Amino acid sequence: MYVVDRAPLSRTELARIDAYWRAANYLSVGQIYLMVNPLLREPLRADHVKPRLLGHWGTTPGLNLLYAHLSRIVARRGQDMIYVAGPGHGGPGLVATAWLEGTYSEVYPEVSRDAAGMTRLFTQFSFPGGVPSHVAPETPGSIHEGGELGYSLSHAYGAALDNPNLVVACVIGDGEAETGPLSAAWHSNKFLDPVVDGAVLPILHLNGYKIDNPAVLARIGDEELGALLFGYGYRAYLVQGDDPEAVHQLLAGTLDAVFDEITDIQQAARERGAVERPRWPMIVLRTPKGWTGPREVDGKPVEGTWRAHQVPLEGVLDDASHLAMLQDWMLSYRPDELFDADGRPTPPVVDWLPAGRARMSGNPHTNGGAAPRDLELPDFRGYAVPVGQTAGATSVLGAFLRDILAANDHNFRLVCPDETHSNRLSTVLQATDKAWQAAVEPVDEHLGRHGRVMEILSEHTCQGWLEGYLLTGRHGLFSCYEAFVHIVDSMVNQHAKWLKTIRHLTWRQPIPSLNYLLTSHAWRQDHNGFSHQDPGFIDHLVNKKGEVVRVYLPPDANTLLAVTDHCLRSRNDINVIVAGKQPAPTWLDMPSAIRHCQLGLGTWDWACNDQGDPELILACAGEIPTIEILAATDLLRTHLPDLRVRVVNVVDLMRLQPESEHPHGLPDTEFDAIFTADKPIIFAYHGYPWLIHRLTYRRTNHHNLHVRGYKEEGTTTTPFDMLVRNDMDRFRLVIDVIDRVPGLARDAVSLRRQMVDKRTEHRDYVRRTGRDLPEIREWAWATNRG
Amino acid sequence: MYVVDRAPLSRTELARIDAYWRAANYLSVGQIYLMVNPLLREPLRADHVKPRLLGHWGTTPGLNLLYAHLSRIVARRGQDMIYVAGPGHGGPGLVATAWLEGTYSEVYPEVSRDAAGMTRLFTQFSFPGGVPSHVAPETPGSIHEGGELGYSLSHAYGAALDNPNLVVACVIGDGEAETGPLSAAWHSNKFLDPVVDGAVLPILHLNGYKIDNPAVLARIGDEELGALLFGYGYRAYLVQGDDPEAVHQLLAGTLDAVFDEITDIQQAARERGAVERPRWPMIVLRTPKGWTGPREVDGKPVEGTWRAHQVPLEGVLDDASHLAMLQDWMLSYRPDELFDADGRPTPPVVDWLPAGRARMSGNPHTNGGAAPRDLELPDFRGYAVPVGQTAGATSVLGAFLRDILAANDHNFRLVCPDETHSNRLSTVLQATDKAWQAAVEPVDEHLGRHGRVMEILSEHTCQGWLEGYLLTGRHGLFSCYEAFVHIVDSMVNQHAKWLKTIRHLTWRQPIPSLNYLLTSHAWRQDHNGFSHQDPGFIDHLVNKKGEVVRVYLPPDANTLLAVTDHCLRSRNDINVIVAGKQPAPTWLDMPSAIRHCQLGLGTWDWACNDQGDPELILACAGEIPTIEILAATDLLRTHLPDLRVRVVNVVDLMRLQPESEHPHGLPDTEFDAIFTADKPIIFAYHGYPWLIHRLTYRRTNHHNLHVRGYKEEGTTTTPFDMLVRNDMDRFRLVIDVIDRVPGLARDAVSLRRQMVDKRTEHRDYVRRTGRDLPEIREWAWATNRG
Repeated sequence: MYVVDRAPLSRTELARIDAYWRAANYLSVGQIYLMVNPLLREPLRADHVKPRLLGHWGTTPGLNLLYAHLSRIVARRGQDMIYVAGPGHGGPGLVATAWLEGTYSEVYPEVSRDAAGMTRLFTQFSFPGGVPSHVAPETPGSIHEGGELGYSLSHAYGAALDNPNLVVACVIGDGEAETGPLSAAWHSNKFLDPVVDGAVLPILHLNGYKIDNPAVLARIGDEELGALLFGYGYRAYLVQGDDPEAVHQLLAGTLDAVFDEITDIQQAARERGAVERPRWPMIVLRTPKGWTGPREVDGKPVEGTWRAHQVPLEGVLDDASHLAMLQDWMLSYRPDELFDADGRPTPPVVDWLPAGRARMSGNPHTNGGAAPRDLELPDFRGYAVPVGQTAGATSVLGAFLRDILAANDHNFRLVCPDETHSNRLSTVLQATDKAWQAAVEPVDEHLGRHGRVMEILSEHTCQGWLEGYLLTGRHGLFSCYEAFVHIVDSMVNQHAKWLKTIRHLTWRQPIPSLNYLLTSHAWRQDHNGFSHQDPGFIDHLVNKKGEVVRVYLPPDANTLLAVTDHCLRSRNDINVIVAGKQPAPTWLDMPSAIRHCQLGLGTWDWACNDQGDPELILACAGEIPTIEILAATDLLRTHLPDLRVRVVNVVDLMRLQPESEHPHGLPDTEFDAIFTADKPIIFAYHGYPWLIHRLTYRRTNHHNLHVRGYKEEGTTTTPFDMLVRNDMDRFRLVIDVIDRVPGLARDAVSLRRQMVDKRTEHRDYVRRTGRDLPEIREWAWATNRG
Repeated sequence: MYVVDRAPLSRTELARIDAYWRAANYLSVGQIYLMVNPLLREPLRADHVKPRLLGHWGTTPGLNLLYAHLSRIVARRGQDMIYVAGPGHGGPGLVATAWLEGTYSEVYPEVSRDAAGMTRLFTQFSFPGGVPSHVAPETPGSIHEGGELGYSLSHAYGAALDNPNLVVACVIGDGEAETGPLSAAWHSNKFLDPVVDGAVLPILHLNGYKIDNPAVLARIGDEELGALLFGYGYRAYLVQGDDPEAVHQLLAGTLDAVFDEITDIQQAARERGAVERPRWPMIVLRTPKGWTGPREVDGKPVEGTWRAHQVPLEGVLDDASHLAMLQDWMLSYRPDELFDADGRPTPPVVDWLPAGRARMSGNPHTNGGAAPRDLELPDFRGYAVPVGQTAGATSVLGAFLRDILAANDHNFRLVCPDETHSNRLSTVLQATDKAWQAAVEPVDEHLGRHGRVMEILSEHTCQGWLEGYLLTGRHGLFSCYEAFVHIVDSMVNQHAKWLKTIRHLTWRQPIPSLNYLLTSHAWRQDHNGFSHQDPGFIDHLVNKKGEVVRVYLPPDANTLLAVTDHCLRSRNDINVIVAGKQPAPTWLDMPSAIRHCQLGLGTWDWACNDQGDPELILACAGEIPTIEILAATDLLRTHLPDLRVRVVNVVDLMRLQPESEHPHGLPDTEFDAIFTADKPIIFAYHGYPWLIHRLTYRRTNHHNLHVRGYKEEGTTTTPFDMLVRNDMDRFRLVIDVIDRVPGLARDAVSLRRQMVDKRTEHRDYVRRTGRDLPEIREWAWATNRG
């Protein structure tokens, strides 16, 4: 690792950067401890202290130090920069720096930049009705909630994409560095284009300890650590020490060198056409955990150990000596130099800081984007497939996405874990390449330095990149195998929480929705087997706040086009679209598809013979359930022509919920008009059947609802056998009808027997030939419809 | 990276290892393509070929090569070894090698080691009713399903723990290497004890391509790759080439060196007491993707490119030239030398292979363990807490776990992402240390080379270690913050699939259950805020097959002890236990706790005044809901003493499901006896309320069920305010009762008003003081019970 041994700060610069740092540290300690007497203008008493001490001190002085020095770079170089705080528990630090920059008071006017505001600043921290202890949506300048660890670096890279003038400084805690998602994200530098993208400056903050253990990367020695970071593709600079003045000089000198290097790399690529993958700089900052805090408490070392992780000095309410230590600690920052009589920061602390949009806490990239634009969307109706024609839905969508990529040069990205081709979206490569900065061989295809399709075999990294891109105001789509999107369950959890929170923050601009295209789904992973079959991501998401989540199950290519167009226009939502990639029937012409998607669910009159008075409802949601329900309808029409069947298709799953539970919920009267109050409903659903019960248990006719779906009977087999194993095949659905509709004619008995035999025949045929019965493969409603 | 330039193989050895490799490759191709004519004794015709071509050829020759050479090590050195195939899509390879070793026919006698068996071997592959295309539970010698990528290395380390004589060879695909979980798992070497644990030999198989893209690690050059692996703490040996003879010699020489090195490391630690963290060897194997397959098809390069990933030669049914190429390809392995007239492998192919338990495919470590033992469990009743005494449930459990650790030296591990202390389990450190092989500083506590508490800040690595440990027949517990266990959603999915599958494989031995202790749960993360609040893991797991999953919500310390004892004795299950860590009341004495846990749910007579004829049911599941329901009962008792209330507590959540849906499901008559057929039920539940509806929607009285739970209203606040925000506080529950029980006296109206006022009073008090109302903090049922 390189060490830059310069001392670029003049005495004045050193003094003011140190003053700023002390002020930020002072304000951080104040947030953890104080209710009143924020400036310690009177001797500290127990009743000045919060009744419950919360917060994480350990990482905070390091975060503040970095914020101070990066602000110097912003001010000196006019550098457009944002700050991602991976050790997000260090919330007090980022709140303190935003307050010093004035952003905090602009956003929350009641927290003014004076003594009264400082009191509020302290009181509200980790306090009911106040602000969380982490860097969070409530924190100006943040695009990253630091509660769950692991995503800072992929967020940072996502933010840098298509932002050529931006540097994203990303502080990575040494605890976070042990997580899988963070470990994978280092390799993002093979996907960052020095021409069209900005830069990421990773800063690994080695303060040595996690909650209760040393950090691995802090205990492997410099040689191994340096090799690791070189192996990740970086040029690592080491800044270490525990003497503030020395560290200030080292860090300032290193940052000067590092930003020169970033400029050189970008100029080489942009002006001189350099095409080698650059070795981007990064920093290892090794300073004590809880630096400048209590060195020892009750005879045990605290500064520099895991004991400084949270509140380093407990019991200040009851123990006068601890209270005195707290006062000494806070006074060690010399608050009288830092804040004037009114509690305003003094000029040396703040008069050198960047202003307006240049402040990292006020940078518009972190609040909806610097120049957010709607997507230019070509008219999706132009990609329509004629009714009756067989089409792979995602292939059709591929052409739409290709034209979106072509029309939105620096405003749209497609991310995917090495599956774009497998998901039948290769058409997009007519418009752009797959991003790739590593070595290229002659045999490679569609790899390009400026590509905007992002493929890495890490769902975590894909998700992190996309979140970072969306959080800074641009648009995108994540295409994924349905089963493996569970890998990012926890990430999408956190993003859903972010979206819920920003809806209630008036100063937060909306951001483009997080859009998933889930394909290669459970019903068509018969060849890959059980490990590839899981439709449960929907269930996971439906637990999130209804206002945030939408789930769409377009039954064919035209409805997929309509739904995708809608999702790409939306804001602040998480949209899950589940669609097929194999050739399948096209049920609706485009005008009908649009109408159907707008309604979200509805009867398919052309498939009904209910004469307005059905004897049963056949409902379906999803590509494959729709086919089976229509095939079952076909069988009923042939064998029990007098049975009055109503066919209902559901595209927008949230329509099933009551109005009170979801903004898309269908009013009860409308629901009852479609599903009746008393007729049997056979519902074939794409995923786990109980989800339909969970969504509809308050509906009038719920007791008549019988749902078929995936019930975890997976294996390596044929497509139709997957249906038979899970009791969702057309024959089983017909049996369900016969078993549930009262008073059917004698014909029904023989039809039932026939259906049972068909299932046996199918099983035998599959075992023998490895293929589905020809009649299954060849069945087409279109012929019946005509 | 080191290159071992020796040629240790004699001509005979070389010939037989190459013969074995060719045989395995031949059998792999046969599985992908052929239905009949397995030995190509007649010219290949289209009708010999499978109707649907499935499988992954690309990685297979490399897997086979490694299997051959590792078998040589097993045979030569008598090395106890198992083989983890990360690139699990290479299923045909591991099936082929198991068949060559004879294990396959022992396990599946119908697939005999002759021509008839070979036909079955080929036909069944990726065929309905046959075997999956991946390395899977069905594959002898496997502990790792290779469908979802990322977990091979953590599984390998888990298997090596406490198996001092075992080497786990772990092949890592260069695609898999991009995932987060795999990237994190490299650092497992800081936790592997060279004295009590075995060794892991990671083999990074760089064949250059994923499905459709080059692999990152294949395109960063040797210098960076070598540095990366050094940085991970390994000594990397490079084996590369595309000339079989040269690669055989290189690989054999390298493996000889590597196994000498492993022996040296272990001897140094075991015999000479070396305590430095060893630099374990690993191998980088760089050979062409789809090596020995078709070089070019239709003018496009295939061997050595991503086009070899799956079926490298398509269209053999329709294209005679492709069919001829397939025949040439298969004949290039010279099957007549490899198989005799009856289709049995010839002596040069197999007579040098290890036999019996020494075969990697037959190694008992991979099938329930080499010497599986039940846990020695101290009598959990000895840790009982007296009724009425306040206790933190996990603290109490900590003492039980401590004694389990003490009594089960090489048979039990506790894994945890840096939270053992935070989860109040520190007592376990009285029995053992936290495993740690990296550098130690004087300030550190409880770190030890032989520690059996495994802490790394990676839920993925914790889960992978534990799975590997269980899959090889040992026992363990994963203690985790409830919200962040979602990080392993997808891993537990795959483990659940494994468990479901092995239940139906008669030759598979049962393995100890996967036990989760989820604490620091949603209701007590008020201080950490919204990001730390998510009870949805239960919902995720309940989608898995009922036979595999159990969920326990012990309401106090005694029930936690009873439930944990039960879970630690179980096999083949996934047990989720959700428990509190904060001081809380003890409701049941130990005999009652045991009885209650055996029943799984039941009325708490001491809290009821229903006289056998309740007017309503107050039900609860979970630590906090139990407290609130009892507090609400207390309020009702005081203010509406004539109201006949029945209190029901649920420990075993699966009891709520119908018998038909889950082995623990309560029969309807018993359910109705407890919950009545027609009385209102107010149910306070730990997690998302709709789960209770999903479990009970078929029950008689479901329409009277009203559930309160976590509805995603989280923030930084007080414990009781979390309840108020989610409408699960005692006051709200009393209101629910009043709103739902018909014909209540006038007193109810005033009580309702009082409850509404209480909620307001609480909110005001919290906002003002940051604390809960004193009456909430001080409420204790015990006084009322007495």
